[in-house]
Amino acid sequence: MTMTSTVGTAAVMGAGAWGTALAKVLADAGSEVRLWSRRAEVAEAINTTHANPGYLPDIALPTVIRATTDAAEALDGLTTVLLAVPAQTLRTNLEQWRGLIADGATLVSLAKGIELGSLMRMSQVIVQVTGVDPSQVAVVSGPNLADEIAQGQPAATVVAATDSGRAITLQRSLSTGYFRPYTNADVIGTEIGGACKNVIALACGMAAGVGLGENTAAAIITRGLAEIMRLGIAVGAKTATLAGLAGVGDLVATCTSPHSRNRSFGERLGRGGTMEAAQLAAGGHVAEGVTSCESILALASSYDVEMPLTDAVHQVCHKGLSVDQAVALLLGRSTKPE
Amino acid sequence: MTMTSTVGTAAVMGAGAWGTALAKVLADAGSEVRLWSRRAEVAEAINTTHANPGYLPDIALPTVIRATTDAAEALDGLTTVLLAVPAQTLRTNLEQWRGLIADGATLVSLAKGIELGSLMRMSQVIVQVTGVDPSQVAVVSGPNLADEIAQGQPAATVVAATDSGRAITLQRSLSTGYFRPYTNADVIGTEIGGACKNVIALACGMAAGVGLGENTAAAIITRGLAEIMRLGIAVGAKTATLAGLAGVGDLVATCTSPHSRNRSFGERLGRGGTMEAAQLAAGGHVAEGVTSCESILALASSYDVEMPLTDAVHQVCHKGLSVDQAVALLLGRSTKPE
Repeated sequence: MTMTSTVGTAAVMGAGAWGTALAKVLADAGSEVRLWSRRAEVAEAINTTHANPGYLPDIALPTVIRATTDAAEALDGLTTVLLAVPAQTLRTNLEQWRGLIADGATLVSLAKGIELGSLMRMSQVIVQVTGVDPSQVAVVSGPNLADEIAQGQPAATVVAATDSGRAITLQRSLSTGYFRPYTNADVIGTEIGGACKNVIALACGMAAGVGLGENTAAAIITRGLAEIMRLGIAVGAKTATLAGLAGVGDLVATCTSPHSRNRSFGERLGRGGTMEAAQLAAGGHVAEGVTSCESILALASSYDVEMPLTDAVHQVCHKGLSVDQAVALLLGRSTKPE
Repeated sequence: MTMTSTVGTAAVMGAGAWGTALAKVLADAGSEVRLWSRRAEVAEAINTTHANPGYLPDIALPTVIRATTDAAEALDGLTTVLLAVPAQTLRTNLEQWRGLIADGATLVSLAKGIELGSLMRMSQVIVQVTGVDPSQVAVVSGPNLADEIAQGQPAATVVAATDSGRAITLQRSLSTGYFRPYTNADVIGTEIGGACKNVIALACGMAAGVGLGENTAAAIITRGLAEIMRLGIAVGAKTATLAGLAGVGDLVATCTSPHSRNRSFGERLGRGGTMEAAQLAAGGHVAEGVTSCESILALASSYDVEMPLTDAVHQVCHKGLSVDQAVALLLGRSTKPE
């Protein structure tokens, strides 16, 4: 693969908040962007008004972002493809796209989750479905609330790839005055941090919803980090990655921000709302952690790793445990060495 | 030393917010408490109205807490002494108290800081001034905003001591339904986490004060943790301690809570206030991080450890650097591997 300083033109597959925000980052860093949207009205709004009001209201998008609903048109000839569809739909989407992706392309996962059933990380799904070499896969993950990125607020992130040349090219292509990517060879750790934090954010939201304060939140975040590290180390992640932006950083942002969807969802449950009511309040969407707590717990179990917080969240979301009981479970363990 | 399940009667030397809150925890866990206050009006309020309105308004204190301004009376015959005076006054206070402390007593540091000049941790100051064996010294530190503890909000903390018997006795004496101590043998790591987090909270406050969002805060917390870990490892701390309640946990609580004095102080600076104005708004007190950034930086320098965030905060607080310049410094480093 030839080394270039930026990627020239990139495809972003998925025009939700995060895909659109990263399309803007790519454009601001000097690339042209083809942005694939499932929905025609979103693509049309982007092409005619240069805005994506459903996901990023009040953000003016660069005109070098061209949207399309045609995946073949989006992908044609491009060697950098950012995959910005939800974790649990990545496989289905990739099955439709794999024949359209250029040879040797870098496939960049923006999705955060563990696939239900297969218990695969997103990079594993990409390799399995497309047949690319693992060195072609990269992951972008960090403390990156999409609306703040779109507003140009300063943020840092991790670009992880085993191929350092691809990582550096991506880093350059995503570097702007407000967005600062750091390269990392640890794809596994970067993905584990991103997948697991949503579940801990649900737990933080539940505690806040029942009226508990910031000491409790900090204790939950710390315990959450500990169980994420246990799982990460078991599956081959590096501790330093989980102590960094894609671990601690993303965990803190997601757990403490009132704008985090997972935290908000948990908070509604904590205030006494049902799963159905919380889903309704979230525009009909279940928070990602509600789904991924199931696959993360299964993955942890397959490695004999205990994740008591994830387990408690899972019991609330899928087994009918009350939030009060779950919070007691989170806090009520017997005194012992840290 | 005989092993007992709780300490029976404990002395708490210092009736500020944290000393008073821990006196309440000791009482709620079944001990009697002698609480030393420097100021007669505080001692009198505690003894007559069972409240400390200047530090913990609206909190009813247990009647088994008896306050005194007489250190000899507070310390007389007691083998558990919690030291709750500010870090930079611990030496002077201990010099007056050392002849009054019972032989074999456990001396528990609640102060968070590094002493200016000597660059000692609080446990080192205690050993040097009192001549006790290091095994007699314990440290309590964690994500413990005092007002939440006093309100009985659930919280966890670390009780660190090299003597596991003393650690366990203290753990039992501080265990209540809302307060959960975990023992740890790593005194150094527990102290480094507690001392360094105030400086990072100042940095987070500054960033918030100039209008930066939660991605920035998360990046600062992550970078802050990285430099705390570098210093910790250099001076002999365990990484696990700094990834735990006394490290990440305390850091997150102090950096994200609007009730944190250090964060609030930094926020006022970030909004354009002078050091003098921020101090005035904080009731005349300089935030602890303003003082400790100086000693922490000197300690780091003596171990050849770089702490760029602490350095930037130090430059703002003591060298006239503007907050805008400091924030640019914090965010403007060149792209490189994480």
